[in-house]
Amino acid sequence: MRVEIVNTGTELLLGRVANTHLGFLAQSLLGLGLRVERQTTVPDGAAIAEALDEAMARADLVIVTGGLGPTSDDITRDAAAAAFGRKLIFHPEILDGIAAKFARRNLAMNDLQRPQALVPEGGVVLDNPNGTAPGLILSNEKTVAVLLPGPPGELRPMWTDDVLPWLRKKFAHSLVPVHEATLRILGMGETRVQSLVENAVKALGPVEIGYCARPGEVDLRLIAPDENLVRQAAALARGKLGDAIYAEGSETMEQVVVRLARAAGKTVAAAESCTGGLVANRITNVPHSSEMFRYGWVTYANEAKMTELGVPAGLLEMHGAVSAEVAQAMAGGALRGSGADLAVAVTGIAGPTGGTLEKPVGLVYFALVSTTGKTEVMERKLLPVRETFKYMASQIALDLVRRALV
Amino acid sequence: MRVEIVNTGTELLLGRVANTHLGFLAQSLLGLGLRVERQTTVPDGAAIAEALDEAMARADLVIVTGGLGPTSDDITRDAAAAAFGRKLIFHPEILDGIAAKFARRNLAMNDLQRPQALVPEGGVVLDNPNGTAPGLILSNEKTVAVLLPGPPGELRPMWTDDVLPWLRKKFAHSLVPVHEATLRILGMGETRVQSLVENAVKALGPVEIGYCARPGEVDLRLIAPDENLVRQAAALARGKLGDAIYAEGSETMEQVVVRLARAAGKTVAAAESCTGGLVANRITNVPHSSEMFRYGWVTYANEAKMTELGVPAGLLEMHGAVSAEVAQAMAGGALRGSGADLAVAVTGIAGPTGGTLEKPVGLVYFALVSTTGKTEVMERKLLPVRETFKYMASQIALDLVRRALV
Repeated sequence: MRVEIVNTGTELLLGRVANTHLGFLAQSLLGLGLRVERQTTVPDGAAIAEALDEAMARADLVIVTGGLGPTSDDITRDAAAAAFGRKLIFHPEILDGIAAKFARRNLAMNDLQRPQALVPEGGVVLDNPNGTAPGLILSNEKTVAVLLPGPPGELRPMWTDDVLPWLRKKFAHSLVPVHEATLRILGMGETRVQSLVENAVKALGPVEIGYCARPGEVDLRLIAPDENLVRQAAALARGKLGDAIYAEGSETMEQVVVRLARAAGKTVAAAESCTGGLVANRITNVPHSSEMFRYGWVTYANEAKMTELGVPAGLLEMHGAVSAEVAQAMAGGALRGSGADLAVAVTGIAGPTGGTLEKPVGLVYFALVSTTGKTEVMERKLLPVRETFKYMASQIALDLVRRALV
Repeated sequence: MRVEIVNTGTELLLGRVANTHLGFLAQSLLGLGLRVERQTTVPDGAAIAEALDEAMARADLVIVTGGLGPTSDDITRDAAAAAFGRKLIFHPEILDGIAAKFARRNLAMNDLQRPQALVPEGGVVLDNPNGTAPGLILSNEKTVAVLLPGPPGELRPMWTDDVLPWLRKKFAHSLVPVHEATLRILGMGETRVQSLVENAVKALGPVEIGYCARPGEVDLRLIAPDENLVRQAAALARGKLGDAIYAEGSETMEQVVVRLARAAGKTVAAAESCTGGLVANRITNVPHSSEMFRYGWVTYANEAKMTELGVPAGLLEMHGAVSAEVAQAMAGGALRGSGADLAVAVTGIAGPTGGTLEKPVGLVYFALVSTTGKTEVMERKLLPVRETFKYMASQIALDLVRRALV
């Protein structure tokens, strides 16, 4: 079964916005045993029809993202209707639904919203709880076309909640599931992971081994048609990699931390300097994190470290804000101030300025303290690129919490 | 002049690796006045030849990334030679260069490297100081094909140092720069923006108008070959949209806030409940934000609002944590506690739980206070999807700061 993706949007071809749809959809399709054979990006307007026609001539399943909105350059709906030879039918209930969404946010709806209520004859309408334009599925004997709204916050839940179940049912007899295990590893390079696991896993049988490296971490992916073989390979890799594995599958570090803390009935506080709120932000991205995260401080200035976390002025003078001693004092202050069970602190030099020969940009100290008396302090030198640095530092801080909760 | 990009690589179509080449190349090409009309991703192997042939049939300039390496699925070189009807000629000096690179890293070179020294007859060889495979430029009367290595660290310098100067010289007479203005608008829907500006802008002349909508905001893009026309169109749109425009070009809200605060010599503090540190995190993503951001609080729990920000218990009891009164008290506490010139506070219900009939998920209150006595309080109902909600709320909070700084 041949799958193609058509991404529409002038902003993608101007290089303003990165295409995140391809990665999301490709990974999800892989879970169905389907691989994307071609992906095309075209600008808004007439090129959408051209690309859709070409993809439909080659593929069994064509997924189109974007171009369903209300403005004049949104022509995916019309192009698909033309490609399938269907009339567009006005569905008043769709427009009523859009009007209700406007009303709930106390906004007036105008006539320009109307095209979003047009449906090519015989099309399956996919409700869009996170936006206005509904998605659509069109099919004939040869091809299925799935039309999805462009905003990721609308596309992703629609795909997961509506399209995936529809595809599973439609192609129940032709899908050959591929089994996959992903182990997410912090603090080990790609070649180190490879040297630890690859030969042993290959000896088990025909498992496809993939590595996806990011700064400071790597995902190990094991794929095979045989579920049992994937399970064995994952067990073997777990044995070799131990607690460097911080998560499995698509679970994130922050999801692991929130899950472990809730399960243990523990609360966590964060005192951040160089990560600037990223640790707190990542924790609070997880639903129900309010049960385990109650206090966070962003003490960017030295005075903030003193007045909010009780870091002694003398300690700052003697060791500098970026030091093991100050990290530990920040964590201690957060623990006392919050009444939490665990507190983590981060202080470092994110750059581009502020580095010295002795303390270069990228240097960072972490501390974890707990009400049980546990104290851990760590020094790391990370990539001196601001946002990468912040992310890597937040990942290590969260991993300290994870290890304390295991 | 029509430009297409062909990205090769199975990992892109498995969703493991994001395509960063498109954004880099598209932005660079726009500087030459060239727009990418289509981008295609194909897996390694035979599909490369197919995609190259199709792109060459349509385009004047085709840029191919990847598939130049030493392994058997790297067939870009062969596909291009076939498409241009050229023989592959072995260049011993290229292989010598590769051998020298191996020697410098004390590695032995094997025969697999040899294909990288093959050049289609008449091809321009682009030296690759950051890897092994050289890039290539092939051309006939109709089409130019630029073949670039896949790793970004090899592709980017080769593009900037070699390909851009070559293109500038080759197309010196035919390049017609395209001019672009992007206005970024908060708090107005796509159709509202369209109804305010589209007719008036169209009346000025042939300006291409594009909209890129995200929850709560929209980018308005104006493109034309005539720089003066773009400037007029942007001025007209500015007049219609007023201070709903929070940024222009690729500047972000947080960059605007940091720029304005630094220029005014003002400091800003943030007291966050439902945004959970996202406001602080976004501000501190901007280099030099430490000059204007010194204190942030993530007061997720009611006790944190009381102990850290001095919000009276009675106020929380009477109005609830999600109320205009508590937002204002949080901002006041942050202003006093930080000694900053401005403080912003956010309190709301991010969900999925915690909503009531009276105060549903998505409800949020904002407050901005300043040492000059200015106080502003706002209520909004945002999309009740956790991460979208947090982003929208952080955007509105930052916009309050921006407006106070203008």
